Amino acid sequence: MKKEIINELVGIVGQDWVVSDLSQMQSYLYDETELRIRPIANEDCVVVKPSTAQEVSEVVKLANKHLVPVVPRGGGTGLCGAAIPTSSSIVLSLERLNKIVEFDNKNLMITVEAGVTLEGLLEEMKEHGKLFFPVHPGDEGAQIGGMVVENAGGVRAVKHGIMRSHVKGVEVVLPTGELVNLGGKLIKNNMGYDLLHMMIGSEGTLGIVTKATLKLYAKNPNIGTLLVSFDTAEQAADVVPLILQEGIIPLAIEYMDRETALVSAEHIGQTYPATKGEVDLMFILDEATEDDLYAKCERIVEMCEENGAVDSLIAETSKDQRNLLEIRSNVYTAYKENIVDALDMAVPSASVPSFLKDLKAIAVKYNTESAVVGHIADGNVHNFIMLKDGKVPDYADDMRNEMYAAARKYGGTITAEHGTGKTRMKHMHQQYSPREIEIMKGVKKAFDPNNILNPGTIVD
Amino acid sequence: MKKEIINELVGIVGQDWVVSDLSQMQSYLYDETELRIRPIANEDCVVVKPSTAQEVSEVVKLANKHLVPVVPRGGGTGLCGAAIPTSSSIVLSLERLNKIVEFDNKNLMITVEAGVTLEGLLEEMKEHGKLFFPVHPGDEGAQIGGMVVENAGGVRAVKHGIMRSHVKGVEVVLPTGELVNLGGKLIKNNMGYDLLHMMIGSEGTLGIVTKATLKLYAKNPNIGTLLVSFDTAEQAADVVPLILQEGIIPLAIEYMDRETALVSAEHIGQTYPATKGEVDLMFILDEATEDDLYAKCERIVEMCEENGAVDSLIAETSKDQRNLLEIRSNVYTAYKENIVDALDMAVPSASVPSFLKDLKAIAVKYNTESAVVGHIADGNVHNFIMLKDGKVPDYADDMRNEMYAAARKYGGTITAEHGTGKTRMKHMHQQYSPREIEIMKGVKKAFDPNNILNPGTIVD
Repeated sequence: MKKEIINELVGIVGQDWVVSDLSQMQSYLYDETELRIRPIANEDCVVVKPSTAQEVSEVVKLANKHLVPVVPRGGGTGLCGAAIPTSSSIVLSLERLNKIVEFDNKNLMITVEAGVTLEGLLEEMKEHGKLFFPVHPGDEGAQIGGMVVENAGGVRAVKHGIMRSHVKGVEVVLPTGELVNLGGKLIKNNMGYDLLHMMIGSEGTLGIVTKATLKLYAKNPNIGTLLVSFDTAEQAADVVPLILQEGIIPLAIEYMDRETALVSAEHIGQTYPATKGEVDLMFILDEATEDDLYAKCERIVEMCEENGAVDSLIAETSKDQRNLLEIRSNVYTAYKENIVDALDMAVPSASVPSFLKDLKAIAVKYNTESAVVGHIADGNVHNFIMLKDGKVPDYADDMRNEMYAAARKYGGTITAEHGTGKTRMKHMHQQYSPREIEIMKGVKKAFDPNNILNPGTIVD
Repeated sequence: MKKEIINELVGIVGQDWVVSDLSQMQSYLYDETELRIRPIANEDCVVVKPSTAQEVSEVVKLANKHLVPVVPRGGGTGLCGAAIPTSSSIVLSLERLNKIVEFDNKNLMITVEAGVTLEGLLEEMKEHGKLFFPVHPGDEGAQIGGMVVENAGGVRAVKHGIMRSHVKGVEVVLPTGELVNLGGKLIKNNMGYDLLHMMIGSEGTLGIVTKATLKLYAKNPNIGTLLVSFDTAEQAADVVPLILQEGIIPLAIEYMDRETALVSAEHIGQTYPATKGEVDLMFILDEATEDDLYAKCERIVEMCEENGAVDSLIAETSKDQRNLLEIRSNVYTAYKENIVDALDMAVPSASVPSFLKDLKAIAVKYNTESAVVGHIADGNVHNFIMLKDGKVPDYADDMRNEMYAAARKYGGTITAEHGTGKTRMKHMHQQYSPREIEIMKGVKKAFDPNNILNPGTIVD
């Protein structure tokens, strides 16, 4: 990185907040993307840590002057390589924009700076017992700004949707350096094109979010977890819409292959409580009253039994609930060492059983396995391409393409929540027509005429 | 309109579905925008009524060849002049795309062609008793395609949000003629930029929606309506967040000035049931069980009384409920004859009382009145600029600008649900910076390089 640029950055944020020594920069060059598929970071970078939106704006203006890319960085928990600088860049970390700006009890909203972590937000929410923020993508090290631009999802989408449902306003530094506010403490806004909704999910390519206003909801204090076992994925999938049609909306409905669950349980030294059947649904419910909770749990069990469930158990204590959730959460870590790629497709939820069969058939064809867990009520399936004899197998690309094609066959998406980033950009043509990709490039150009912000992400 | 173009249109859709005689075209030239503010239609138009998305595509390609504008038209119930052709145009009516495509019980979604009316959708939903579609902007003559591109709202946004929350997929003819599908039967999709969310609210400028897939929800069969009276708007507004914080989420919370309510009641020959106090909140609740309904109504009344309510009544019979709703719904028609402009601003809901004071002060300043009703829980206020001695007063523009400025002072929006269209485009600079408007123009250009679709709407 040119000395001149480094000096100007020091002029904006001060000596202490510019890192130009490669040895101190390593933790800013990668995110949580799988080792075997992540792009290689360009090491000719400089890390800058502004403390205000104004400083972010000045950095972006400087970048436009020198035509050097800026790669915004949140908690580094992303899974699509969006935060990895692949050309010589200014890596702009939001970590110092870490203040809770305002808890607004009357509008049921909270405004936080972009660098506040999910953990920090949840801590703050403990102070305001009655209300809660529903989105939880798993890793509490994620920063709110990153969750906005990655449109984070997670297990609770059944009941509460994704980030897009709850982000009402953002303060954002545009790629040309202007500081603007999109949206606000508003439920309805039909003035102009909705640039707020373009910003959500834009992966740091259309602007740098510096502040976000999030909708809050009344907390239902009674939590229960149910584990119900079935012989087949079809039986499990078929019962899901019946439950939703009755107006029972669990916080989460998770699907697990038994084999996968057992591997995960063993990995963390737990005993998996289900023994009958081949697949499980895990229901998490949060209800206003204890009566509601038990009535709904009972009704779910009843409906599952009518649809062929072979066993069910209620995790009564919070310890039992935690154990179950840990087994579900550790599926990824149990397999991590041997993973080439963690896929993240979604199909219409009713197509999940057929899609699972397709995934299995593709794995069998390549003489390998592909463990599956999924947010079944929103059709979001996570499965893996595994190492073969400790190496990335020759067939990995073909297998991935075939799995993507299977998802597309049902009108599905290649990535439900992890994002396009730098790792899935090459697959855009599998989901979108040339004209759609051309429009996306035009949108990028409208926001970022000099292609300064996070180039090589989503579109070329 | 050139004979050549008319002939080519006949070639696409057949003689019966092209209207080029001005006398038969009148009902296609205007929408429901107030007479005194609506733009004047250019009468050198031709109306075309394709019956398939393929035909829509061919019309749009023809328009690109001749560089003649296309103005898409739904039910004509819009309130911002978006459907009024202000230059010599092809008016493309979606009325023949009127089929229910698929009721998908397993995915809890319904797919309809764009020209299906809200009335038609509600009729269809009666066949599927357990599920319902929540958005209701008031006029059931609205077509679903129009509701998508206008991002329709209405009274039920408190509980269910707006169209944006429920539109999961659209089939759309792009301004360059290609037919594409955006989104799908998906709850999560993070591949690429979200063009679906650009299409929602784009007012027929970025594409012609030909089909929409909408999310459905379990119907709560127990409906109740509560009317609670207060002395001041502040008292009424202050109780709203307390109710939401308890997890009681009514279908609707409507605010009415007493004076306004009385005018409306008289207009339709009803007796308004409330007599004490100066303002009312009307709560509509839909709950799963009768017990839930009564418990929540009681709790609301209790909380209102703790916050200064002077009277309350429950509309027990569906006749009483209908009467109350009719009074609320007829506020607009009661004043219609004397309305210059029906405004549609929104502010953060906690700012509603201050905003109402501002609106009143502005009306007093101009020695006029401005009746107010509002969706108070989402901060959306509807008020009027009235005729003076039967004429549009000189101060109308100044008064409107001052009211818009008042909304902006609280971080509000000029239009919460009616849209920008051709009537509010000139006010874009009151809400957005030059750079934001420039980006919006760039987005339009990315979709519509020849500026074919509905030019002069949202952006120049």
